[in-house]
Amino acid sequence: MDREYLEELLTRVKDGELAVEEALEVLRDFPYADTGFAAVDSHRPLRTGYAEVVFCQGKTPAQVVAITEKLVKSGLPVLATRATPETYSAVLSQFPNASYNEPARTITIPGEKLIERRGAVAVVTAGTADIRVAEEAAATAEFMGCDVNRFFDVGVAGLHRILDKMKEIRHADAVVVAAGMEGALPSVVGGMVDVPVIAVPTSVGYGASFGGIAALLGMLNSCANGVVVVNIDNGYGAGYTAALIARRAETK
Amino acid sequence: MDREYLEELLTRVKDGELAVEEALEVLRDFPYADTGFAAVDSHRPLRTGYAEVVFCQGKTPAQVVAITEKLVKSGLPVLATRATPETYSAVLSQFPNASYNEPARTITIPGEKLIERRGAVAVVTAGTADIRVAEEAAATAEFMGCDVNRFFDVGVAGLHRILDKMKEIRHADAVVVAAGMEGALPSVVGGMVDVPVIAVPTSVGYGASFGGIAALLGMLNSCANGVVVVNIDNGYGAGYTAALIARRAETK
Amino acid sequence: MDREYLEELLTRVKDGELAVEEALEVLRDFPYADTGFAAVDSHRPLRTGYAEVVFCQGKTPAQVVAITEKLVKSGLPVLATRATPETYSAVLSQFPNASYNEPARTITIPGEKLIERRGAVAVVTAGTADIRVAEEAAATAEFMGCDVNRFFDVGVAGLHRILDKMKEIRHADAVVVAAGMEGALPSVVGGMVDVPVIAVPTSVGYGASFGGIAALLGMLNSCANGVVVVNIDNGYGAGYTAALIARRAETK
Amino acid sequence: MDREYLEELLTRVKDGELAVEEALEVLRDFPYADTGFAAVDSHRPLRTGYAEVVFCQGKTPAQVVAITEKLVKSGLPVLATRATPETYSAVLSQFPNASYNEPARTITIPGEKLIERRGAVAVVTAGTADIRVAEEAAATAEFMGCDVNRFFDVGVAGLHRILDKMKEIRHADAVVVAAGMEGALPSVVGGMVDVPVIAVPTSVGYGASFGGIAALLGMLNSCANGVVVVNIDNGYGAGYTAALIARRAETK
Amino acid sequence: MDREYLEELLTRVKDGELAVEEALEVLRDFPYADTGFAAVDSHRPLRTGYAEVVFCQGKTPAQVVAITEKLVKSGLPVLATRATPETYSAVLSQFPNASYNEPARTITIPGEKLIERRGAVAVVTAGTADIRVAEEAAATAEFMGCDVNRFFDVGVAGLHRILDKMKEIRHADAVVVAAGMEGALPSVVGGMVDVPVIAVPTSVGYGASFGGIAALLGMLNSCANGVVVVNIDNGYGAGYTAALIARRAETK
Amino acid sequence: MDREYLEELLTRVKDGELAVEEALEVLRDFPYADTGFAAVDSHRPLRTGYAEVVFCQGKTPAQVVAITEKLVKSGLPVLATRATPETYSAVLSQFPNASYNEPARTITIPGEKLIERRGAVAVVTAGTADIRVAEEAAATAEFMGCDVNRFFDVGVAGLHRILDKMKEIRHADAVVVAAGMEGALPSVVGGMVDVPVIAVPTSVGYGASFGGIAALLGMLNSCANGVVVVNIDNGYGAGYTAALIARRAETK
Amino acid sequence: MDREYLEELLTRVKDGELAVEEALEVLRDFPYADTGFAAVDSHRPLRTGYAEVVFCQGKTPAQVVAITEKLVKSGLPVLATRATPETYSAVLSQFPNASYNEPARTITIPGEKLIERRGAVAVVTAGTADIRVAEEAAATAEFMGCDVNRFFDVGVAGLHRILDKMKEIRHADAVVVAAGMEGALPSVVGGMVDVPVIAVPTSVGYGASFGGIAALLGMLNSCANGVVVVNIDNGYGAGYTAALIARRAETK
Amino acid sequence: MDREYLEELLTRVKDGELAVEEALEVLRDFPYADTGFAAVDSHRPLRTGYAEVVFCQGKTPAQVVAITEKLVKSGLPVLATRATPETYSAVLSQFPNASYNEPARTITIPGEKLIERRGAVAVVTAGTADIRVAEEAAATAEFMGCDVNRFFDVGVAGLHRILDKMKEIRHADAVVVAAGMEGALPSVVGGMVDVPVIAVPTSVGYGASFGGIAALLGMLNSCANGVVVVNIDNGYGAGYTAALIARRAETK
Repeated sequence: MDREYLEELLTRVKDGELAVEEALEVLRDFPYADTGFAAVDSHRPLRTGYAEVVFCQGKTPAQVVAITEKLVKSGLPVLATRATPETYSAVLSQFPNASYNEPARTITIPGEKLIERRGAVAVVTAGTADIRVAEEAAATAEFMGCDVNRFFDVGVAGLHRILDKMKEIRHADAVVVAAGMEGALPSVVGGMVDVPVIAVPTSVGYGASFGGIAALLGMLNSCANGVVVVNIDNGYGAGYTAALIARRAETK
Repeated sequence: MDREYLEELLTRVKDGELAVEEALEVLRDFPYADTGFAAVDSHRPLRTGYAEVVFCQGKTPAQVVAITEKLVKSGLPVLATRATPETYSAVLSQFPNASYNEPARTITIPGEKLIERRGAVAVVTAGTADIRVAEEAAATAEFMGCDVNRFFDVGVAGLHRILDKMKEIRHADAVVVAAGMEGALPSVVGGMVDVPVIAVPTSVGYGASFGGIAALLGMLNSCANGVVVVNIDNGYGAGYTAALIARRAETK
Repeated sequence: MDREYLEELLTRVKDGELAVEEALEVLRDFPYADTGFAAVDSHRPLRTGYAEVVFCQGKTPAQVVAITEKLVKSGLPVLATRATPETYSAVLSQFPNASYNEPARTITIPGEKLIERRGAVAVVTAGTADIRVAEEAAATAEFMGCDVNRFFDVGVAGLHRILDKMKEIRHADAVVVAAGMEGALPSVVGGMVDVPVIAVPTSVGYGASFGGIAALLGMLNSCANGVVVVNIDNGYGAGYTAALIARRAETK
Repeated sequence: MDREYLEELLTRVKDGELAVEEALEVLRDFPYADTGFAAVDSHRPLRTGYAEVVFCQGKTPAQVVAITEKLVKSGLPVLATRATPETYSAVLSQFPNASYNEPARTITIPGEKLIERRGAVAVVTAGTADIRVAEEAAATAEFMGCDVNRFFDVGVAGLHRILDKMKEIRHADAVVVAAGMEGALPSVVGGMVDVPVIAVPTSVGYGASFGGIAALLGMLNSCANGVVVVNIDNGYGAGYTAALIARRAETK
Repeated sequence: MDREYLEELLTRVKDGELAVEEALEVLRDFPYADTGFAAVDSHRPLRTGYAEVVFCQGKTPAQVVAITEKLVKSGLPVLATRATPETYSAVLSQFPNASYNEPARTITIPGEKLIERRGAVAVVTAGTADIRVAEEAAATAEFMGCDVNRFFDVGVAGLHRILDKMKEIRHADAVVVAAGMEGALPSVVGGMVDVPVIAVPTSVGYGASFGGIAALLGMLNSCANGVVVVNIDNGYGAGYTAALIARRAETK
Repeated sequence: MDREYLEELLTRVKDGELAVEEALEVLRDFPYADTGFAAVDSHRPLRTGYAEVVFCQGKTPAQVVAITEKLVKSGLPVLATRATPETYSAVLSQFPNASYNEPARTITIPGEKLIERRGAVAVVTAGTADIRVAEEAAATAEFMGCDVNRFFDVGVAGLHRILDKMKEIRHADAVVVAAGMEGALPSVVGGMVDVPVIAVPTSVGYGASFGGIAALLGMLNSCANGVVVVNIDNGYGAGYTAALIARRAETK
Repeated sequence: MDREYLEELLTRVKDGELAVEEALEVLRDFPYADTGFAAVDSHRPLRTGYAEVVFCQGKTPAQVVAITEKLVKSGLPVLATRATPETYSAVLSQFPNASYNEPARTITIPGEKLIERRGAVAVVTAGTADIRVAEEAAATAEFMGCDVNRFFDVGVAGLHRILDKMKEIRHADAVVVAAGMEGALPSVVGGMVDVPVIAVPTSVGYGASFGGIAALLGMLNSCANGVVVVNIDNGYGAGYTAALIARRAETK
Repeated sequence: MDREYLEELLTRVKDGELAVEEALEVLRDFPYADTGFAAVDSHRPLRTGYAEVVFCQGKTPAQVVAITEKLVKSGLPVLATRATPETYSAVLSQFPNASYNEPARTITIPGEKLIERRGAVAVVTAGTADIRVAEEAAATAEFMGCDVNRFFDVGVAGLHRILDKMKEIRHADAVVVAAGMEGALPSVVGGMVDVPVIAVPTSVGYGASFGGIAALLGMLNSCANGVVVVNIDNGYGAGYTAALIARRAETK
């Protein structure tokens, strides 16, 4: 396409249809206004239908409302993460169809076009304290059109709990595992499924858990295959990648 | 199959073809030799055809040969990682069809059954020093039946290099990015593709790179969506997960 | 027992008392519904009489009350750790026989069956600021049926204090030593007793104590034999393990 | 000059114009009261016109007012950094011409003598959360007489944003780049300009960003030439050095 | 006894049987020559029959031989840890009944008096690379008179391996678990036994395992009860404490 | 003296002046009440007149008052460190002659016996923010009877400031240098005096100062001779050791 | 020029002098060979005359020779850093005019066009052990056409050494200061000059210097204005940035 | 004396005995050759008789010989630390009266003037592996004219060992305590003496001792008064400071 575009442009110059000066103007912006633009802008992949995500932390409710407004006007669905109840109130007063997932701290507003449901994501936690992070992952994957199954509080100290759920977990196209403390659960899950496991260390723990570092290191050093890791408490990132994987996975 | 196996066994007991005592012997090993085995032993997922992987570090050439022997006898393909030339010599003297990927330090022996080629993985490096790790990822993904494209030495300090390759990289179903030093390349790639990026920090660098920690932290904190991380220098793990993703991805 | 169970099941199939289909259903859950379940569930060793422990941190008073209710109904004794006074109020209003150990922040409710008193645990602290952690250890060991002797504020800077108490400390079957700052006390105690010393680093200190890391490292590097370590401020874990040891120890 | 001063002094002693005792008094303070003084006191380079900078953190409003008073009396311009609104109120009530840059948290009061405008500094941020730090850099460079251009929220995850601005950024004599999270932006900018890049890691991020350490390490390990680093959140230091460079740079 | 000793001494002074000067001499050494001495010297608990342990690291073969000589002369059994083959050769040439455990790097020489066999210790490893450390633990516990059962290479990535062995492991009075990488195995074992688990992090791993720190942190943060930790690679310490526990445990 | 005491005691027993039982009572406390006491209890070296020091952090005002009461009754002088204004109010209401050093956060009450003034300590700070820590050092040294000279805000960025003061600083018998940020001042001072320099890192700074770690490491790595270090913000420890040195130093 | 080049190309297409196909070929490489090239490829800023720099670490002598060959053929000067004597031998055998700076470990080959000498850089070290790093900085700055003055072994523990040299150092347009251990020298120098100070921490030191971390932290926390930092031992980076600054600085 | 020197110089100028030009030459070097020299050059305090110390690490034998030559010519005694046997051979061949302390790795050559013996230093170690560091401290203090008593292998795990020696240790004017592993010994010693304790962490240990960091942190957090710390393995620094203290201490 680029080549065709360029070819056409040059031909029009050759044919005198386009002034040299005008062609120069076009070429000056070439890397950004054409393919290039689409290329670099995968961050906001409107074309993919995943839409914008608003990271609320460090933004005022007013700022979040303003950004939301712009998105809604474009007919896009909205996902806002790390949203406080205050931020939700502000958004709700403007957009009555906004809904809030309290443990996940996410706000969602459906877009004009429904996202086709596709792909199955399992979200697993070691303890109940990891649920906030897990819910952020779940909300993100659901927003991106995946079916999400939750398996909470199935940590390794009572192994029967996770064993009991493995059959169901194996139906997923991607598994998110959130765990704090020693972060051992992803290794155990990774040893029992044949799809990627996105491990999310959580800052749950005390003493030498160092706000999630112990869990992070445990997960990076996992002896199981297919385990990859995201940042501490980054439920959003885990859910996003799990959805990327699941949506393109062949139906088993 | 598992179910069928069990059903058959029970039917034979019912029909008096199999003594209770004999059935007991079979069932004693049930969790490992049958369903259970498949379930827990995804580490060695024979059914998926991914076969065994031998981690050579800390094993003597003789030990590696012994394990290889067992696998070859079962008709399975063999992938051995972190293999020294000495180990390769030992393996080669027994298995003349063993081949060695020197930068990747991997040995492969084809199995009896060919793995169907499927899924495309792009393997990208920031510098030439990251190639060893990248080749391990590439060799692993190829062993698992994926097509692999290599894009080496395209780090962010000369941005045109990576921009030049983006069109090709976007054809992959999963992207592995290996980088040392500041580990910035996965963020740049992650911002330009809509498939998962498996970031591998490498221990390349000096001073405050701390043997890959700087790159690891950079990757964990990536501001791009869809970036997940494996352990420092863990090319194998990155290639394995990329292949898991790519093999089940729908053809674009 | 497992074997017998299986044998019976197979015999019933053989004898036509159990349909193959029904036997299949039973075998599908076999690892969790039978021995397996008991096996993995040592986490909540009802059979041992140690009962449930409720970790209150991160739970609302209402949640703690709900869990407590379930335990009390089963006739089990209750130990809740890291309980705030608010949580205690909530529990007390429902269970008038609940008692609160303020420095330990533990709530206890006796069970229907009294635990036989057995085993002696010594709990030692370096300073007065370590007492909160030590009391959690003491309360836990007492809850598990051990006799506990406390030896507080006997740190190494005034060595006569600990020397003075050694005779008494040597009567214990296990010793818990809680210390912050340089964490030297377990080494000194470990050099003078012939039972295991469970060292608990506390987050007491300032500057380069790094919230207990200095003490933790000191304890891990102890030059004395028989010293083992638990997480920073983990009085509960220390008391639990000390009780495990003491309860099974032969009377001297 | 020193030599001349000393020569004159000795000549006056020789000529009996100065008593030995008096010369001794002068020589006693020689290293500090004369050239030496100017030498060591570059910290407060009054002669260069850069004037005093007041670091408000840890100072009461009253203390800041007192220092400001002294500077204003000397006819010097005033820059106060890390100033709270309270401190500004206190200063404003005394000096009605004081102005406050809220995001930068700086107070400025013009001096009697205008600083000649000279040198161009570009201040770039990866995200909107880095703006506070960037504004401190900008305010400092402006105070020192430089023209400052701001390029905010042009992080690497959407590469077209920074590419779009490069032409303008290249006009600067020095570039300040503030980034948190993985801190990759300075490498990208450093690869595209031929003037020094002052990288400022910001404490923006969460999880394994460790309050700016991830960004700091990323910047120190930058694979681009001409990238130098200042302390986490040290916008003032970055702006100061950028201005030092820019003011003495030849006009392109 | 102390009191009686002192009483007798004073009585003898009172009765004129002991000169004041002589009593003074006795009292000067009082804290070390009497009970006190035995008290503090538990490090070398001759009375307990555990005998001396020689830490060979940093000692020349000649030095080890010299220390060994002294112990053998006293009729004591000898355990030397971290012994190189060279050290063993030197010891063997003097003491033909010395034996060497190569993976454990321990030398043992039986004492005159046989230690009564008592207590059962299970030694478990996650991988084969952890065996050196585990064997040091096993050799130590055996030296102290315990029966030791080894369960090697049963890490969590193939969970069936450890599940398969749990029945046997539960027979032990104390369990040592050695694991590198993510260090998850002690949590899994701790959740399934009701005796103390001594976790030994090993320096096995690469990348962000940091020579055992990842495993160490994982173990300290274990969510299972009854898990205590020793220093990285400290097989000796784990075996010693396990034996302390096992030898005094009641027979189940 | 010890020997004399014991000799006298034994002689009195011998002479029938002291019953064996009474002597036993005395000897029971022997290690603490007599020589032993002096030996081990240097922490509270009453004989040296340094008296008790009360560390208030983590103690309630009531607890501090109670301890103070005991000391005052014994006629001892009192020094309480890390005392809040609230604690001072509580103490003052009981002891009207108590005085409070606000920046140092110390309370002092003179004892019955005046401590002879002796030894000169210089207390130096790099910045004004280090003064709190420096004042704690100064107050401690003054309490122990030393003359203290303060040299504040003489950091290395304006070298003339410290050079200007060196002549006076050299009169001290020991120098305390408190500095945050890069902690360079002790090296500069250490290079110019021939008495010990006690370096106190302070938690002053931001970003990569890590609450004093940067300063601590700088001081430990000082290239100057005679520089020793205490914990971060440990003004008390620095002042105490400086006084120990100064009081016994010969008058120059 | 870029614009002119494009204009000329388009004009030639318009005038039929260049076929569309040929113009396409040219434009295909457009981003790298023309404006784009200059834009992104500042890493190899041929136009500025700074030429290529070859980082030899991790490259074989043969690889370095090959890269050198390409550069020499283009008439460019060559700077190779981190070159071993072996690499130099290999280069010398091909390029007899190659010269080697042993302490700096740099190889240089003059280009066809002489670089105009311009700008003055001072390179300062704290100790003699820092000289290797400093020489790399000096060789780099000289290669880029700057005059370099060296001031070695002038650390802060003997302050007169650096004071003695300050007059000369102040003539520089940029100052590089290399220091290990506590890294205090840049603060002292930064307090006495009014040009930027590029601080290079070196890995010189022992104990808690942690391979340069102590010096790095000290420099990042410098209390002097105008101090910026590069990676540990990164003499090349410091020299490069110093030259960038110095070459464009106005003659004083 | 300085003053006298200057007075004399000025008087000679006044009296016409010295030309202004000549006086200028003298004054040019004034800060280093006279008072200034003494002031800043305490690093090499010739006047105090402590003489030069040569740090051999990183210096060739030839370089050490050259420096030694210069010192010997000036009649000064020589102390060279971190000297390898090779360096000693080189020195010995030139200076037959050079002697070598092997464990301390120090070379000494007596000066023309004998240093008056004065002050008592005790050097204590926890284990035998700490002796190398302790000997460096001892050799340094002896070189500076102190009497040194050594108390080796008296660590806290066998407390009677150190208790046994306390009476002798208390005779010292300053105590050096070298310890690795948990670094607890200085706290114990510090609690029993009333002179300063210079704690030297050693890099002895394994696992989580982190090359001396555990011991360093333990010592910095010592709960005993009068404990100050030097860098890991810095025996020289500890011995130097101990001697500074001891030489000026009053005879008890």
